[in-house]
Amino acid sequence: MSGNVFGVLFRVTTWGESHGPAVGAVVEGCPPAIPLSEQDIQGELRRRRPGGLPSASPRKEEDRVEILSGIFEGRTTGTPISLLIRNKDADSGAYEALKMVFRPGHGDYSYTQKYGFRDHRGGGRASARETAARVAAGAIAKKVIGQVGMSVKAYTLELGGIRAENLEMDQVEKNPYYCPDSQAALLMEKKLSEAGQAGDSLGGIVEILVCGCPAGLGEPVFDKIDADLAKALMSIGSVKGVEIGAGFGAARMTGSVCNDPLTPSGFPTNNAGGILAGITNGADLILRVACKPIPSIRKEQQTINLEGEAVRLSIQGRHDVSVIPRIIPVCEAMVSLVLADHFLRQKAVQL
Amino acid sequence: MSGNVFGVLFRVTTWGESHGPAVGAVVEGCPPAIPLSEQDIQGELRRRRPGGLPSASPRKEEDRVEILSGIFEGRTTGTPISLLIRNKDADSGAYEALKMVFRPGHGDYSYTQKYGFRDHRGGGRASARETAARVAAGAIAKKVIGQVGMSVKAYTLELGGIRAENLEMDQVEKNPYYCPDSQAALLMEKKLSEAGQAGDSLGGIVEILVCGCPAGLGEPVFDKIDADLAKALMSIGSVKGVEIGAGFGAARMTGSVCNDPLTPSGFPTNNAGGILAGITNGADLILRVACKPIPSIRKEQQTINLEGEAVRLSIQGRHDVSVIPRIIPVCEAMVSLVLADHFLRQKAVQL
Amino acid sequence: MSGNVFGVLFRVTTWGESHGPAVGAVVEGCPPAIPLSEQDIQGELRRRRPGGLPSASPRKEEDRVEILSGIFEGRTTGTPISLLIRNKDADSGAYEALKMVFRPGHGDYSYTQKYGFRDHRGGGRASARETAARVAAGAIAKKVIGQVGMSVKAYTLELGGIRAENLEMDQVEKNPYYCPDSQAALLMEKKLSEAGQAGDSLGGIVEILVCGCPAGLGEPVFDKIDADLAKALMSIGSVKGVEIGAGFGAARMTGSVCNDPLTPSGFPTNNAGGILAGITNGADLILRVACKPIPSIRKEQQTINLEGEAVRLSIQGRHDVSVIPRIIPVCEAMVSLVLADHFLRQKAVQL
Amino acid sequence: MSGNVFGVLFRVTTWGESHGPAVGAVVEGCPPAIPLSEQDIQGELRRRRPGGLPSASPRKEEDRVEILSGIFEGRTTGTPISLLIRNKDADSGAYEALKMVFRPGHGDYSYTQKYGFRDHRGGGRASARETAARVAAGAIAKKVIGQVGMSVKAYTLELGGIRAENLEMDQVEKNPYYCPDSQAALLMEKKLSEAGQAGDSLGGIVEILVCGCPAGLGEPVFDKIDADLAKALMSIGSVKGVEIGAGFGAARMTGSVCNDPLTPSGFPTNNAGGILAGITNGADLILRVACKPIPSIRKEQQTINLEGEAVRLSIQGRHDVSVIPRIIPVCEAMVSLVLADHFLRQKAVQL
Repeated sequence: MSGNVFGVLFRVTTWGESHGPAVGAVVEGCPPAIPLSEQDIQGELRRRRPGGLPSASPRKEEDRVEILSGIFEGRTTGTPISLLIRNKDADSGAYEALKMVFRPGHGDYSYTQKYGFRDHRGGGRASARETAARVAAGAIAKKVIGQVGMSVKAYTLELGGIRAENLEMDQVEKNPYYCPDSQAALLMEKKLSEAGQAGDSLGGIVEILVCGCPAGLGEPVFDKIDADLAKALMSIGSVKGVEIGAGFGAARMTGSVCNDPLTPSGFPTNNAGGILAGITNGADLILRVACKPIPSIRKEQQTINLEGEAVRLSIQGRHDVSVIPRIIPVCEAMVSLVLADHFLRQKAVQL
Repeated sequence: MSGNVFGVLFRVTTWGESHGPAVGAVVEGCPPAIPLSEQDIQGELRRRRPGGLPSASPRKEEDRVEILSGIFEGRTTGTPISLLIRNKDADSGAYEALKMVFRPGHGDYSYTQKYGFRDHRGGGRASARETAARVAAGAIAKKVIGQVGMSVKAYTLELGGIRAENLEMDQVEKNPYYCPDSQAALLMEKKLSEAGQAGDSLGGIVEILVCGCPAGLGEPVFDKIDADLAKALMSIGSVKGVEIGAGFGAARMTGSVCNDPLTPSGFPTNNAGGILAGITNGADLILRVACKPIPSIRKEQQTINLEGEAVRLSIQGRHDVSVIPRIIPVCEAMVSLVLADHFLRQKAVQL
Repeated sequence: MSGNVFGVLFRVTTWGESHGPAVGAVVEGCPPAIPLSEQDIQGELRRRRPGGLPSASPRKEEDRVEILSGIFEGRTTGTPISLLIRNKDADSGAYEALKMVFRPGHGDYSYTQKYGFRDHRGGGRASARETAARVAAGAIAKKVIGQVGMSVKAYTLELGGIRAENLEMDQVEKNPYYCPDSQAALLMEKKLSEAGQAGDSLGGIVEILVCGCPAGLGEPVFDKIDADLAKALMSIGSVKGVEIGAGFGAARMTGSVCNDPLTPSGFPTNNAGGILAGITNGADLILRVACKPIPSIRKEQQTINLEGEAVRLSIQGRHDVSVIPRIIPVCEAMVSLVLADHFLRQKAVQL
Repeated sequence: MSGNVFGVLFRVTTWGESHGPAVGAVVEGCPPAIPLSEQDIQGELRRRRPGGLPSASPRKEEDRVEILSGIFEGRTTGTPISLLIRNKDADSGAYEALKMVFRPGHGDYSYTQKYGFRDHRGGGRASARETAARVAAGAIAKKVIGQVGMSVKAYTLELGGIRAENLEMDQVEKNPYYCPDSQAALLMEKKLSEAGQAGDSLGGIVEILVCGCPAGLGEPVFDKIDADLAKALMSIGSVKGVEIGAGFGAARMTGSVCNDPLTPSGFPTNNAGGILAGITNGADLILRVACKPIPSIRKEQQTINLEGEAVRLSIQGRHDVSVIPRIIPVCEAMVSLVLADHFLRQKAVQL
C-alpha cells in the first residue's frame, strides 16, 4: 500500500532513511540453493558509489552489506534474505540552509503538499540513498537470472547531448561513464566538467540490454513485462521517459517497416525490443530511459520559501553533475528484479 | 499473480476473451454515494467503437454494458461493481487462415513460447477486445476523480508522422482522430487513407493531459505516480514508449533549463509534467505514449509457420490502419484508474 | 483491501448483493486444461439450495450459473473464469418491517456502526446469498484438487445437541442433514421440528474431512495451512469456532498422548488432524466448525430501535431453523479453495 | 506468496532463522507521529523470555531490539520500521542427535515432505524463535491501538486440565503463568512440575480479552475480523483451535439463548464475543485458543528415522513443559496486529 514493496513472487521490501542508522531490504521468494555471498552484493554496491570522477559527489560511504538471514553454508535457503547497510556519513547539517525553501526540480514541494508539512522523513525515503537497498536486492536478482543465462547490462547512450555512436560493449566497464563508445566518453567527461564549472547539471539517456532472456516471460493484460519494466525504471528518481525497442521511433514507422520478420534463424531486426504483446520473444531486450539533469545546481534559481514568497536560490555543496553514471547499476538492479520475478511467475504458470 | 488485476485501493479485475460469450470487469474499492449509471459507462464505450472512419474496422459491436452489482438507487454503495459486456460479433472463422503461421509484430510467437502451444486462449485475452473492460472500469474511475475536479483528456499528437502543432483543446472531439489541430487532422486522414490503400499501417503519439490534479498524489519509492502511470500505459497493446513532461527532451537539457521555477503564482513552466519525485505537484499532468503501427497488414511479409519454415504472409480482412484513434479512450481509462487509486491511497495516508 | 478476494494463486473475487440483479465470482489462477462445465458447478449449487426440509426456507431460487469466460471446448484455459448467477426471487418487502430495529445476533448493529447509517448495502453483501458465489467458485476448486486425488466432505457432527456417534460416510448424502449417523439424523429432524414450532433455532457442529491430501501443503510462519483454513471457515457467517484434529481436546492431553507416533506404515492416530507445524503431513485433514443458532427467530426478543429505545421483536417470515445443512457445501467450498490455492503455491515453491 | 507477510495496511514482514545471525521484522503502514522507543518493544520481548520458571527453558537470550528506521525524534514517521534482534545463544549442536529421526508432533516430517529433504532452513523459520519478531512488531501495533483506547490482554484459562475459575484481571501479571486465578496458578505450577518430572508435557487454553475496541472494525465477506483473528492465532505454533465468544458452546444453544439482546445501555451478555457478522459491535472481544502440549518430551516415543525404519526416541535437553506462558505475549501480538490493521482499514473505508 505504502509503496515500499516491489515484485510478486520475487519480492523486495526496502526500508531506511538517508539520515537514519541504516538502509536495507528484505528479499522474499528467492529460490533455494543459489550460491550467494556478501561479496556478490558488495560488488554491485561498489559500482553505485561515487569514485572521485567529475560526475560524482565526494560523499564517502563504505556501504558494507550484511546478510542477516536466508543463507546457509553459502547458499540461499528459500527463506527471506535480510540485507543491512549501515549509514556512516550522514551530515544533516548540510541541509539546514535549505530548510526554509523549496528547491526547484526536487520533491520538496510535492512532499510538503502530500504530508502537510516540510517533510524530513519523506526526504529520507526519497533520497538517492534508498537506491543502495535496491542495488543490494538487485544483486540477488542478478544472481538468480544469471543461473539461467540472463545478463543485464546498462550503459550510457547519451550524456549532455553527446551520443555514443559506436557501441562496443567491451568498453563499457573501461571508462567511468559506462559508455560503450570510448571516444564519446572523452567528450562526455569534458561536457560534465564544463557544466560543473558553470554551476549547472546535465541529463542523459541510459540504455539497458538484456541478453539470454528466454521467450515467454510476462503476463497478459496488466502485468505485461514491458509494463512492469516501465514501472520499475520510472520508479527511479530522475527518470522521465522509458522506451522499448524502437520506442518513440516506432510512432513514425509503417507496419511493414516496424514489424520484425520471423525467419527460420530468428528475428533479423529487433524493433520490438524483444517483447511482443507484453511477452518476451527470445530476442535481446532493449530499453532506454531518459534522465533529467540533477536539480541541485549552484546556478541561481527562482523559487519560493515556506511562506510562499519569491526568493533566489543557489545550492551550495558538492553535488553530482549528472545522475549518470551512478544511476547505471540502479537501472540494472530494477530490470533484474523484474526479470527474476517474471521468471518465477512463468515457472508457476507452467504448473 | 496472473496479471488480470490493476490497482491497490481502487482495483479492477478484468476477464473475458474476444471470442467467448462476454468480457467484463469487477471494480473494487469505489467509494460509496457516487452517482453512476450504465449511461456513464456507455458513453465511454461508444468512443472506443469503430465509427466507419478510414482508421476503423467495420466490425460492429453494440458493447452494451450491464451493471450487475454495487449500485443502489443510482449511486455506488462501496461494494464491488460488476460490469458485463456481451460479445456479439465474434467471427472466429476469419482467424482460421492464420492458424498455422506466426504473424510478425503480433503476440503469436511469444504466446506460443509462453504456453507451449499455439495459444487461442492467450490470443483471446491479448485481443484489443479486452480493452472494452478497461474502458468500462475507467469510466467509473473517471466519475470518481471527476467528483474532486480532475479531468483526463487524451488526444492525437502525431499520426503517421503528421504532428499536431496548433493545440486547440476544443477541437479534440470535433474530428474523428481526436486531434487538437483541425488542419493536422485533415492531413492525418489523407495519410491513413494512403497507407490503407498501400496495405500498410501507421503509428503515432498520443498525449494525455490531466487537469485539476491535486498535489500530493503518489507514494515514495516504488509506487511513485509516474511509475504507476508508466505501467498503466505500457500495459496497453501497441505502446512502446511513455514519457512525462519534457520526457526524452529532458535528457538534453541542463538543470537550469529543466528545473521548473516556483513562483508565488505557481509553476510558469511544466517540464516536470506535474510530477516531482514521484508525487504530483499540483500542475497539470502531461504524458505521451508512442504507439507502433498495427502489425496486421495486407502487404506481404516474411515469417515462419508452425513448423519453423519460411513463408510469405499477406493478412486479409478489414483491419484498422492505426490504433489511433481507438486507443484514445483506453489511454484515458488507464490514467483515470491510476488517479482514482492514488487519490484513495493519499486519503488513506492522511489518517 | 475491501475483503472481497480470497486466495493467492488460486484466487476468487465475489461480488453481488442479495437484492441486486445477480451475484457472481471471478476465479483467477485456475490451471489450464481442466474439464469444467456449468453442470459441475450446478451440482454444488443444488446442494446449497433449500429443499423443503424442516430446516430449510421455502424461498425458491433456481441459481443457474453461467460461465462467461475462461473455458474453451469444455476445458479451462488458465484465464479468469467469470461466473454469473442471476437473482430471481428477491422480495425486499419482507425486510421493510425490520427497517427501524436492530435484530439481535445479526450484523444490523455492527454494520450501522461501521458505515454510519442503516446499511442496506452491507446487508446485501453480508447476506447468505453471497455464499452462492463461494459455492460456485469452490466447485471449480474441487475439480482442481480432485484432479490430484483430493476429496473434501463436510457433514453434520452435531445439531441441537444431538451428536452423530456412529460415523458411516456412505450415509452422508442419504439424509437431508448430511449426517453420517442415520439414527442421529432422525433425532435431529425431530429436534429441528420442535425448535421451529417453538419459534426458536438451533446451532451445531460441522466436521470436514479431506482425504487424499498430499504432504507438504502450507507455508511457514503466517500462511500455515491451518491458519488459512481457520480464516476460510471463520469467514462463513454463523461460525464461532474452528478446530483441527484433537482441537480443544488437545489442550487437556499430555504430549505423550497427543503426539501422533510415526510408524513405517504411517500415522496410527491423527490428533494433529493431518497438519504439523502448519504443513500437511499426508494424513487426512480433520476440521470442525461450531455454528451458532440462526439469529432470526419468531420468539420475542429484547432489542432497540434506530433511536436507541428498548423494543420487543418477534421476527416473522419463514426462516431456516439452523444453518445446517445449508452451510455444508459452503464449508466444503471454502476448504477446497484453500487446498487449491496451497496446492498451486506448493508447486511454485518446488521451482 | 511465501507466507512471511501479515496484514494489509498495517503490515509486518518477518525474517530470520533460529540459528542464523538475527531475526527481525519490517513494519509498514504504521501511522506517523506515534511515540515509539526501543524500550516499548523491549518490554514485550521480556515477557516472552523464559524466566527460570518450571515451565520455561533455560536458554538465555538477551533479545535486544534495535530500531533501524522509521523513527525520528522518538516518533514514528510513517515510513517502514525495521527491527533487528541479534541471535546470541544458538547452540546447533543440541540438534545433532535429532538429525536422523522425525520427532513426533513436530514439523520434521511435514517439512521434509514439503522441501524434499531434511529441512534445517524450514526448521529455522518454524522455530519459536521467529515469534520474537512477531512480538516486536506486535509491540508497535499495541502502541497504535493503545492510542485510540484499545487494550489487549491474554491470560491462561486452563493448563494441564486446571481451569481458572475465578477471573481477577489484576492477578494476571502477578504469577508466572499469567493466570487470573491465583489459586489455580498454584495448581498449575504443581501440575507442570509433575509433568516435567515425568518427562511429559502439557497443553492448555489461553483467553484473549480486548477492551475498548470500537464498533465497526472488520470487512464484509472474506476479511471479517473474526476470520482474520482466527488466522492470526492459528498461525502460532501449537494452536489447534480458536473460538470467539461462546465459541463451541454456541453450537448447543438455541437462538433465543445465544442472541445477545440489545438494550439502551448496551449488550447485557456477550455470546458474540464482540463480533457480529464479522464486524465488531463495541463490546469486548473475547477469544480462546487451544494449545497442544509441547511435542518435545523425554518420555520414549515411537517414530521412524530418515530411512523410514521404526525407532524409539527419547528427546533429551531442557525443553519447556508447556507453551504456556511463553505463548501469552505472542497471542497478544497477533491480536494487536489484526486490530491495528483493521483499525486503519476502517479509517480508509470512511473516506
